Amino acid sequence: GTGFEEKVEEGGERWSKPHVSTLSLHSLFELRTCLQTGTVLLDLDGCSLPQIIDDVVEKQIEDGLLKPELRERVCYVLLRKHRHQTKKPIHRSLADIGKSVSSTSNRSPARSPAAGPNLHRSTEDLRTRLSANYGRLRHVIFLVFLPPPQQLKNKFMKKIPKDSEASNVLVGEVDFLDQPFVAFVRLIQSAMLGGVTEVPVPTRFLFILLGPYGKAKSYNEIGRAIATLMVDDLFSDVAYKARNRDDLIAGIDEFLDEVIVLPPGEWDPNIRIEPPKKVPSADKRKSVFSLNELGQMNGSVGGGAGAGAGGGGGGGRGRAGSGGEDGEMPAVHEIGEELVWTGRFFRELRLDIKRKLPWFASDFYEGFHIQSISAILFIYLGCITNAITFGGLLGDATDNYQVHRGGCGMAGLATFALRSSAPGFGSLCPTRGNGLDYMEFRLWIGLHSALQCLVLVATDASFIIKYITRFTEEGFSTLISFIFIYDALKKMLSAFKYYPVHTTFQPDLVTTYKCECVAPEPANTTFNASALPAPNNTNISLDNPLNLTALDWSQLSKKECLRYGGSLLGNSCQFVPDLALMSFILFFGTYSMTLTLKKFKFSRYFPTKVRLISDFSIFVSILAFVALDSFFGLNTPKLQVPTVFKPTRADRGWFVFPFGKNPWWIYPASALPALLVTILIFMDQQITAVIVNRKENKLRKAAGYHLDLFWVGVLMAVCSFMGLPWYVAATVISIAHIDSLKMETETSAPGEQPQFLGVREQRVTGIIVFILTGISVFLAPILKYIPMPVLYGVFLYMGVASLNGIQFWERCKLFLMPAKHQPDYVFLRHVPLRRIHLFTLVQVLCLAVLWILKSTVAAIIFPVMILGLIIVRKLLDLVFSQHDLAWIDNIIPEKEKKKEDDKKKKRKGSLGHSSGEEPQFPPPSVIKIPMEPVQSDPQNGIHCIARKRASSWSYSL
Amino acid sequence: GTGFEEKVEEGGERWSKPHVSTLSLHSLFELRTCLQTGTVLLDLDGCSLPQIIDDVVEKQIEDGLLKPELRERVCYVLLRKHRHQTKKPIHRSLADIGKSVSSTSNRSPARSPAAGPNLHRSTEDLRTRLSANYGRLRHVIFLVFLPPPQQLKNKFMKKIPKDSEASNVLVGEVDFLDQPFVAFVRLIQSAMLGGVTEVPVPTRFLFILLGPYGKAKSYNEIGRAIATLMVDDLFSDVAYKARNRDDLIAGIDEFLDEVIVLPPGEWDPNIRIEPPKKVPSADKRKSVFSLNELGQMNGSVGGGAGAGAGGGGGGGRGRAGSGGEDGEMPAVHEIGEELVWTGRFFRELRLDIKRKLPWFASDFYEGFHIQSISAILFIYLGCITNAITFGGLLGDATDNYQVHRGGCGMAGLATFALRSSAPGFGSLCPTRGNGLDYMEFRLWIGLHSALQCLVLVATDASFIIKYITRFTEEGFSTLISFIFIYDALKKMLSAFKYYPVHTTFQPDLVTTYKCECVAPEPANTTFNASALPAPNNTNISLDNPLNLTALDWSQLSKKECLRYGGSLLGNSCQFVPDLALMSFILFFGTYSMTLTLKKFKFSRYFPTKVRLISDFSIFVSILAFVALDSFFGLNTPKLQVPTVFKPTRADRGWFVFPFGKNPWWIYPASALPALLVTILIFMDQQITAVIVNRKENKLRKAAGYHLDLFWVGVLMAVCSFMGLPWYVAATVISIAHIDSLKMETETSAPGEQPQFLGVREQRVTGIIVFILTGISVFLAPILKYIPMPVLYGVFLYMGVASLNGIQFWERCKLFLMPAKHQPDYVFLRHVPLRRIHLFTLVQVLCLAVLWILKSTVAAIIFPVMILGLIIVRKLLDLVFSQHDLAWIDNIIPEKEKKKEDDKKKKRKGSLGHSSGEEPQFPPPSVIKIPMEPVQSDPQNGIHCIARKRASSWSYSL
Repeated sequence: GTGFEEKVEEGGERWSKPHVSTLSLHSLFELRTCLQTGTVLLDLDGCSLPQIIDDVVEKQIEDGLLKPELRERVCYVLLRKHRHQTKKPIHRSLADIGKSVSSTSNRSPARSPAAGPNLHRSTEDLRTRLSANYGRLRHVIFLVFLPPPQQLKNKFMKKIPKDSEASNVLVGEVDFLDQPFVAFVRLIQSAMLGGVTEVPVPTRFLFILLGPYGKAKSYNEIGRAIATLMVDDLFSDVAYKARNRDDLIAGIDEFLDEVIVLPPGEWDPNIRIEPPKKVPSADKRKSVFSLNELGQMNGSVGGGAGAGAGGGGGGGRGRAGSGGEDGEMPAVHEIGEELVWTGRFFRELRLDIKRKLPWFASDFYEGFHIQSISAILFIYLGCITNAITFGGLLGDATDNYQVHRGGCGMAGLATFALRSSAPGFGSLCPTRGNGLDYMEFRLWIGLHSALQCLVLVATDASFIIKYITRFTEEGFSTLISFIFIYDALKKMLSAFKYYPVHTTFQPDLVTTYKCECVAPEPANTTFNASALPAPNNTNISLDNPLNLTALDWSQLSKKECLRYGGSLLGNSCQFVPDLALMSFILFFGTYSMTLTLKKFKFSRYFPTKVRLISDFSIFVSILAFVALDSFFGLNTPKLQVPTVFKPTRADRGWFVFPFGKNPWWIYPASALPALLVTILIFMDQQITAVIVNRKENKLRKAAGYHLDLFWVGVLMAVCSFMGLPWYVAATVISIAHIDSLKMETETSAPGEQPQFLGVREQRVTGIIVFILTGISVFLAPILKYIPMPVLYGVFLYMGVASLNGIQFWERCKLFLMPAKHQPDYVFLRHVPLRRIHLFTLVQVLCLAVLWILKSTVAAIIFPVMILGLIIVRKLLDLVFSQHDLAWIDNIIPEKEKKKEDDKKKKRKGSLGHSSGEEPQFPPPSVIKIPMEPVQSDPQNGIHCIARKRASSWSYSL
Repeated sequence: GTGFEEKVEEGGERWSKPHVSTLSLHSLFELRTCLQTGTVLLDLDGCSLPQIIDDVVEKQIEDGLLKPELRERVCYVLLRKHRHQTKKPIHRSLADIGKSVSSTSNRSPARSPAAGPNLHRSTEDLRTRLSANYGRLRHVIFLVFLPPPQQLKNKFMKKIPKDSEASNVLVGEVDFLDQPFVAFVRLIQSAMLGGVTEVPVPTRFLFILLGPYGKAKSYNEIGRAIATLMVDDLFSDVAYKARNRDDLIAGIDEFLDEVIVLPPGEWDPNIRIEPPKKVPSADKRKSVFSLNELGQMNGSVGGGAGAGAGGGGGGGRGRAGSGGEDGEMPAVHEIGEELVWTGRFFRELRLDIKRKLPWFASDFYEGFHIQSISAILFIYLGCITNAITFGGLLGDATDNYQVHRGGCGMAGLATFALRSSAPGFGSLCPTRGNGLDYMEFRLWIGLHSALQCLVLVATDASFIIKYITRFTEEGFSTLISFIFIYDALKKMLSAFKYYPVHTTFQPDLVTTYKCECVAPEPANTTFNASALPAPNNTNISLDNPLNLTALDWSQLSKKECLRYGGSLLGNSCQFVPDLALMSFILFFGTYSMTLTLKKFKFSRYFPTKVRLISDFSIFVSILAFVALDSFFGLNTPKLQVPTVFKPTRADRGWFVFPFGKNPWWIYPASALPALLVTILIFMDQQITAVIVNRKENKLRKAAGYHLDLFWVGVLMAVCSFMGLPWYVAATVISIAHIDSLKMETETSAPGEQPQFLGVREQRVTGIIVFILTGISVFLAPILKYIPMPVLYGVFLYMGVASLNGIQFWERCKLFLMPAKHQPDYVFLRHVPLRRIHLFTLVQVLCLAVLWILKSTVAAIIFPVMILGLIIVRKLLDLVFSQHDLAWIDNIIPEKEKKKEDDKKKKRKGSLGHSSGEEPQFPPPSVIKIPMEPVQSDPQNGIHCIARKRASSWSYSL
């Protein structure tokens, strides 16, 4: 939990943006003095403000800090209704909602994350002056009072965690005091001090500082300082547990030790520092017992992170590690427990089922969320375009044999919905057999492949992906992204081929442009035409021989004209106006709009609710450009879905019979091509699974590598029998699916960055997408309004978007950046740029080779080449140090045996747990600092983290 | 001068980005102890490292700090060649180029800005270990040595100001010492300690810290602390002037007092803080004698900035003002000394000439710079498009009377080139007279208007623009921007009207689309045709009566067909393919590309040199889209410049004769319309001048409001006589011109933000643009490749770009932002949002009224309405407090008399100075702080800003 500062801006109507509270060192020292000299009342039993103040004043008089004759005046000032005397109708004030604890419980030092953020607000209403009778009281108030308008209250209350307690700071100046009146009060039980806090939160702490007139600003700063301290995790622990004044002072000293100092010449204190993306957790800070380690700032490199650290368990974590916070070595390539080679038949498959089963129900009920709608729409359109694009290509390549399109629904439905995390769809097509019966041959390949998949499952062969490091993952997914981008652009450019632009058109010469259908020489036509259907505009039926000479040739359409052997004459025949350019506008517009809307989420405009439209960016863009297209009414190519559910060729049935059409040796021989198919499917499936299951995605539910592969195998067989295309997981759409289902914390404290919570893991979107795909035939009347260029634009976007967040791509961009402009990537702090560039270059080369392979006849060995990536990566171990590789790639696990043992041990403890959980780090080692030994105060009964120190060195000014 | 920290990243090959050095408080205290206990040698006379070290060691032994038997070992370690023992071939190391002073001079506390930035670099090469003989020396070295590769040296040397002196920090650990060996050395004269610093800069300071083994990180932090102190302006002053150890300690205490503290729980020390846009200047910091004022952080609002502060001289400046740094009230509307109403004839005109004359030569030689080329290209194209667009409109509206287009060159050349700061061009056209001779009537209006202008000049009437506050300025320029945007969009959309898209086109039915010229009924045609010229494709001359029936009607072009009375028949007649869509692509493409390229300047990619292309963004975009257009070869509308230089109508001469064509009363009566023209010209001219002369633009050369108006008047008369259009300054192009000539510091220290230096004020671009405009007829063969939509795109860009940086526009955007996302504008800190919104709404309303006026018949009183803006603004004084207005607008000067007196006083002192100079602020008042009096140390002979303090309160821990 962290608290950032908000101020009431001049005029008292507006809260500033939350920012890091920059204090002056002086005010911290003054505060320290205040606590040393003032009244400290711990565990006061009070339930109303008058009573508390009475006790405090009494104590002050007792200690001789306050003249008895001033008692009444002080009480009056402190108890006076704290009304801001501004002319403004809206009063806002401030609250320091200190701690989130149930008031009396013994709090353990390790706080649960659910306790949530602590808030810290402060204001300076300098215009509040009480009546002259009691002097000019410039009341500077932190964390105060006045029931605000109902609406504000509710809004702010929402952000305060339950069981919060407030800590109120009252600061002001009066003219009747000679020396400051200081009191720090902790109540034994938190109490509602009605009307003091902005929100109805019980108060536990009270800090009062009244001082002589003329130093309001100084008091103000002291108030800010104590408020900032109170929201500090460690100090508030101290405050809750302190037994006496000295404990508090020690807490301040502790805080001072950890404080970060900016030189006055390099920073303007007026700049409000935006809250950082992440702040050091209290636990981490607690483990720091060395001031020297604290000195380790600005990401300097610890000595421990040297070249030899290599394969070990990662050089510690947190500042306490010998390498310091930033010297932390990335852990060894983290892979789930699922990926162990056991050597026992189907053992892991059974485990997978065991792991998956507990999540089965939640896979459904967790899917009902508005975000799912966006994901469904977008994935459905992506899937159907993909199916139709690739389906169309397949249709071309296979004489329309294979593709009865509704089939996508069934195969997809099965593969997709049966698996939980987010796979997608690609398409895979074996080359056409020569002289063989294609469907039967394909069936056999499919069957062999399915069998091989099952063998791989049975032998737990998926353990091999342990060797798939970032290098291979990113190479593969970059390749897929490039294919998306390339295909989208190629399709777009082909529009200029299909619809050639009439570039020499002169508006004035419109009268000279024509295209006429000219009748052919009588001799050529007659024999040819009889087989052809009659043109629509003549009423001659198919059965009657055509009388071509009777045709009105000038009335024929282009296609008809060509069909009957006529020829087109004229200077406008080959041109199609507007369609190419309109396609381009639609394509590029969809792409840019999607990109813009995605960024809109992080824009300053509109409330968060409205900006949620960004989740629907693809859908909104599609809608917008469908509308534009409809508005123009141009005949752009549209998404065409078949309107009936039937096999694509009439001579094909629903089921392929396995025997009889090919020679017998084909049946065993098809195992060889099947092997290639298996490798490709296996690699595609597993790499995508690895990417999807990456630690960053914080998946909770088990991965199920084996189970997925099992279903892929089974469906392979089913699809082959039914002549359906084989669909496997496809990286890009999978990543897009994951992205569209990301969850973030919704209500966070002011200034806190929203935290990525994980992915909405469920089966609902997948199932609905495939039901939709299945019933696409019925959706045809809607889908036919969607122009293809719009979908190509979406494809381009998906390809480009999936490049983002790939470290390889970030490293590629480094080539173009001068060193001084490069972002502060963590790997740049640890690995020399030359080495990074070299590594990137190797990757680029590998990709280039793969791309060339894919584009040439060698395409058939493409799957094997992906395996080659793993080998290249293994060879890189010879060129790069393990240290460098740990930062820019992952380290390949060294010893199978040792690893396995570790796993076994681990599994005992955590079989029921999910695989997404944070890896275990070795406990931070405490370093002994010779110069300044940490003294554990023997008198300290309670385990208080505030430590008094020998401090002969640090504060001996 | 400021210094930011750069680190050598792991591997030792790469400098990190400059960042704010975040120190630990602990290391500062340790440093303080080091200086208290270690050897301090001030004014040591040494010229080589061995000699210096010898002296230091001698002193240590003398003081009993070092055992004599260790003398040799310490010397050996310190004098050993500091070679980094890395395997890497490139060695980079670090230098703290402390101070920029000639070595022996007495330095005045106020440093001249030319002294430039101070640099601070540090490295930690933890791998350097010297031979085991002398123990394991972990040498952490700041600011060190090794001649780097030549290229690096030169690159870095460039950034170091002349006369810089280095301060070297040597830090390391050895195993033979029991207690730290600390020395701070100041040389009496800086000396080249060959090979210690990265760059050949003489060394003045030396800090040495050798300590027992095991605390390298702590030493490292101490080294960083002293290095950071040495680059601090105030501390380095102290270091230069300190007489003894105590002065240094006081300097550190001073630094500690000013230090900015970030709470550890709200900030991760590993985050490297980007250098801020501006840092507090040393002068400001020096004037702070109150710790309390320092406490004033995070932009909290001082009490002094209350509602009553109003019209005064601005509530102080800097932290020393009673309102604190941020409580600073904006000064009263700053206007040049030129704008004083003297009441004496032509007094100010003469002064203007006097002010302008000294700059006349520099106006020419300062213009020769590559930036000027970009400005010329861009302004020329803008001007010519403007001329042709508006010219075209004028031509339409005035029967082609007025516009012989080359004229733009002359009029422009004169008005533009004769004035120095950057005006632009608009066009102004009186409504057409009814039944009157237009040219003569216009001549008289022009003459009257010219006369009125001269009267305004003679009476110094320009003083009125003192009342033009931001409200009026921004209203006017927003209006002009909107006109640009509106016109660009309108012109673009009209393309869809001129080139209708054939939306129902079916590619298949291409054979049915035609457009034929059909001969008319014989009766209608004969009488009509004789007056018309013959079509080009028939060889009948004009004199011969046409035999229409002999025409091949089907061969006629569309225009010819219509001219001869034929009619067009067919379904494709009214459509023009592709042109509209292509125009849109060109238009939008140019706009987006210009926008993107402009942003490119701030992108991370490519070195600064390459990113200079951003200066040419408009030109590059135009080139790109001209290329695209040529590639397609479509018949898009092109920029057409006349190829001969002649009056637009043959019946018009070069000179308009003033008498004879209109009744006599027209001559005096035209004074009334002339008044409107005068007001508009006056307002347009002066508001543009005010915007251009804004303080932000840092113009050095005098403004010349009167002189400009004088020339406008003169040229008005000349243009009227020649029938040329009246061109006056136009806001948008002026702002664009200013923007294209902005200068920034080129070589700045690492981490320092480039500073805006001012505008390249010269006449060269203006003159060349108008020579180019004049010879446009010869450029026609080039210009004809430029499609008009591209230029409309540029117009759209200019309109949109000139909205940026207008505060009004920023305030408009606030309507759409939830409060928590609003940027940290300074006015938002001081004025309640409700008031800001109200003010913005008034402006929006005014603009709406102006827009409506402009678009309706009331257009004729439009100029008067702009004057109305000033009145509205005056009325706002009744609604808003002066305090609020000071922040969101300017305050209208209250009393003419008082102001004038002030001015007179001021002028005495600064007549020779430019008007662009920074306004004088009252000296900051020093505030007495009762609790902690500032003690000026009586022993302190030199005026040292480091003060020892009574400090009973602050450090009494």
